[in-house]
Amino acid sequence: MFSSKTYLNRRMHLKRTLKTGLVLMPGNSESPMNYADNWYPFMQDSTFLYYTGINCVSDLWVLIDIDKDRDILFGDDATPEEMVWTGAAEPMVELAEKSGITMVRPLRELETYVTKRRQQGQKIHFLPPYRAALTLQLAELLGMRHSEIATSASVDLIKAVVAQREIKSDEELREIGKAVDTTVAMHTHAIKNSRPGRTELEIAGELQSIAIGAGGNIAFPIILTINGQYLHNHPTQNRLEKGDLVLCDCGAENTMGYTGDMTRTFPAGERFSDLQRNVYDIVLDAHNTAVSGLEPGVMFKDLHLLASTKLVEGLTQIGLMKGNADDAVAAGAHTLFFQCGLGHMMGLDIHDMENLGEQYVGYTPELTKSTEFGLQSLRLGKALQEGFVVTVEPGLYFNPFLIDAWRAEGRFDDFVNYDAVEKMKDFGGIRIEEDFAITASGSKLLGKALAKTPEAIEALKNS
Amino acid sequence: MFSSKTYLNRRMHLKRTLKTGLVLMPGNSESPMNYADNWYPFMQDSTFLYYTGINCVSDLWVLIDIDKDRDILFGDDATPEEMVWTGAAEPMVELAEKSGITMVRPLRELETYVTKRRQQGQKIHFLPPYRAALTLQLAELLGMRHSEIATSASVDLIKAVVAQREIKSDEELREIGKAVDTTVAMHTHAIKNSRPGRTELEIAGELQSIAIGAGGNIAFPIILTINGQYLHNHPTQNRLEKGDLVLCDCGAENTMGYTGDMTRTFPAGERFSDLQRNVYDIVLDAHNTAVSGLEPGVMFKDLHLLASTKLVEGLTQIGLMKGNADDAVAAGAHTLFFQCGLGHMMGLDIHDMENLGEQYVGYTPELTKSTEFGLQSLRLGKALQEGFVVTVEPGLYFNPFLIDAWRAEGRFDDFVNYDAVEKMKDFGGIRIEEDFAITASGSKLLGKALAKTPEAIEALKNS
Ligand SMILES: [Mn+2]
Ligand SMILES: [Mn+2]
Repeated sequence: MFSSKTYLNRRMHLKRTLKTGLVLMPGNSESPMNYADNWYPFMQDSTFLYYTGINCVSDLWVLIDIDKDRDILFGDDATPEEMVWTGAAEPMVELAEKSGITMVRPLRELETYVTKRRQQGQKIHFLPPYRAALTLQLAELLGMRHSEIATSASVDLIKAVVAQREIKSDEELREIGKAVDTTVAMHTHAIKNSRPGRTELEIAGELQSIAIGAGGNIAFPIILTINGQYLHNHPTQNRLEKGDLVLCDCGAENTMGYTGDMTRTFPAGERFSDLQRNVYDIVLDAHNTAVSGLEPGVMFKDLHLLASTKLVEGLTQIGLMKGNADDAVAAGAHTLFFQCGLGHMMGLDIHDMENLGEQYVGYTPELTKSTEFGLQSLRLGKALQEGFVVTVEPGLYFNPFLIDAWRAEGRFDDFVNYDAVEKMKDFGGIRIEEDFAITASGSKLLGKALAKTPEAIEALKNS
Repeated sequence: MFSSKTYLNRRMHLKRTLKTGLVLMPGNSESPMNYADNWYPFMQDSTFLYYTGINCVSDLWVLIDIDKDRDILFGDDATPEEMVWTGAAEPMVELAEKSGITMVRPLRELETYVTKRRQQGQKIHFLPPYRAALTLQLAELLGMRHSEIATSASVDLIKAVVAQREIKSDEELREIGKAVDTTVAMHTHAIKNSRPGRTELEIAGELQSIAIGAGGNIAFPIILTINGQYLHNHPTQNRLEKGDLVLCDCGAENTMGYTGDMTRTFPAGERFSDLQRNVYDIVLDAHNTAVSGLEPGVMFKDLHLLASTKLVEGLTQIGLMKGNADDAVAAGAHTLFFQCGLGHMMGLDIHDMENLGEQYVGYTPELTKSTEFGLQSLRLGKALQEGFVVTVEPGLYFNPFLIDAWRAEGRFDDFVNYDAVEKMKDFGGIRIEEDFAITASGSKLLGKALAKTPEAIEALKNS
């Protein structure tokens, strides 16, 4: 946890932005797997965590009463009976103190407080819930129908939270750096321990154990697959074979909730094939080009299109595409091979603040998120600012379903050499992803450096 | 998956029991962590799994229309756009075929079907939901308020499902055996790799990697702790020290959703201390006594009380308790050291069918679940039957909060030597847990044998 002053200042800043109203800030509750008391690992709500620092305790609410200039923690101390099961729990007053909160009330008083202030005509701010349990709680608390909750969320609060959370402080950057360091350790393990005969799940399990051993957990489901052509494929009991290309996209969440998110693609055997290396070099060139362009004021959407052009140029050189690269990208032909976005914001969430709405987080009133295939998956389009943390993750994905479907339609056949592409239907996919902080003059790689060129990856694998 | 005939027969059996009505059988949906699209590992609903065998696909519903003798799978095939992210998905008709279901309909037709049959006056059966997302879905589907859903669940359906699922078939016992074998591998690793200097979380992470590598996952949050006095304590970054006692309670869920659940307690260093071994032997004696009593017709509650008496006898021998053991158990004095139950049903859930209500699963109309401290945590009280799978897990837990509180009250001071107990406040806790199938004449240990005596555990540790 940072010092109580950090959280106090964050809430003061929020109050100054919103000026008036009552902010409901619920922490997460436990999430049941197969019955009420068998829980998934607890994950705190990131906005609650940002404004309070309280990570590992469920069922808390903070009310920020701007008009009365009061922050109140609502929560219940563990009973002796509960401590039979869970051991000693930190008293609510101590938790509150660490967050710079001086008022603590039992949960049963939450509804009374909110109802009273509503009846007094106070404006109520809350964020759109992403868990059904909270939708139900908010409906009860506010006397609304559950179908009204999502549309009643406060746009002012969303905008204020985004404006604050998108700029990472130095102490946040240090925490993100720790999460990325653990992520680097996971990838180092994956590269060194992926060998013919092992299964995807065996290796994925080992990567998760590294994240847990570091005191946190995985930040998102691990992608470790010989079918990297599918963007979010789950690991299976597939056994790696010599010649397979392994795509590993994984990241750790650290003890404070900050995340890392990296991707490496490497051979299951000792070396890349010539073709694998050629395609790899195309992705690496696009990656490096995009990274060179990171600086305040640059539109991330433009970097996405620049990287796409680089990919098309490379694909043209190896005979898979044809024609003018800029025209191909303008037409969207690159999305046959690069169906997603160049990157996203990262912080307390792996897609930072995605629960608040991609339009609010990654775009502006003047720049609306596209609904076109490809660009619809670009989560960040707007101009970069100092303090943003973003991923850069171009890739090439040879998805046989998409190739067959678009070939049958004759889609983009001015730009795609389908006969050559046909031979790539069992190639797989390649992605290279790293995490960067935007600085005053450019960007800074977060976390320790990790092998990225084909040569360095082969050297690490065989070290 | 078992053969389609298994699932067909299970549903036919259910139809014969219920005789009439429409059974709504929803599979689980994905469960969000910190935003809608970042999911916890998918866990299928166990009742859905039992009657369909479909494990790894979310957002399916099966309707069992008893009056029309129709089973219908409602679900949507992946679109090419979705396959960009997830790869090829098994078509709904193939999934249905494997379950012995011949009718498949898109999800959008679910509401029409249910509404029509409701309007025709058909009785609707559904189980009480344990996830808020399903409560919301059922409320929409049935035009009810969400607060009415839990109380509108079908008691007839609950009873019919319990009567079927509590008796495990041979093919189920083989699957449970596989899950227990993986659980044994996890414990073997824990015993051999718990050493002074390592953290609880490092070892817990490794255990999870074994469960994942076997193709499933953990069945419940891993307990691996030097604070075994707290029944469900989470692993932390505590470093093991020589002299510490490590309590490990963990279990795997296998690829078909069947579970294992075992506990071992062992020294962090090479050997148990004399005191640790003495207490261990008391728990082992209670464990063995309870196991010897497992057979059809025996009330599990009686075995719980028998094991409790054995614990009290042992505690009396080492000077922590006094007086007549039967009287102490009748008074509840043993619950200072054994606050929970002797065991529970196990199957597709680790506490099998706990979502259906403990009274229905573990008790009978004639045997109501107790609300007393101790017995209130006994999830299974009723008479055993051939085909039940149960855990046996007595323990002794020296909880300093409880000791202080009860000593201050003078509670059970006829039976407790508080001066002696005072010295045990930093002892920790010991539990020994194994899984058994009830046979015609007794019981059968599930899974491979694992070191259980202090000697065998020390030998395994130092092997
Ligand atoms: Mn990413
Ligand atoms: Mn158990």
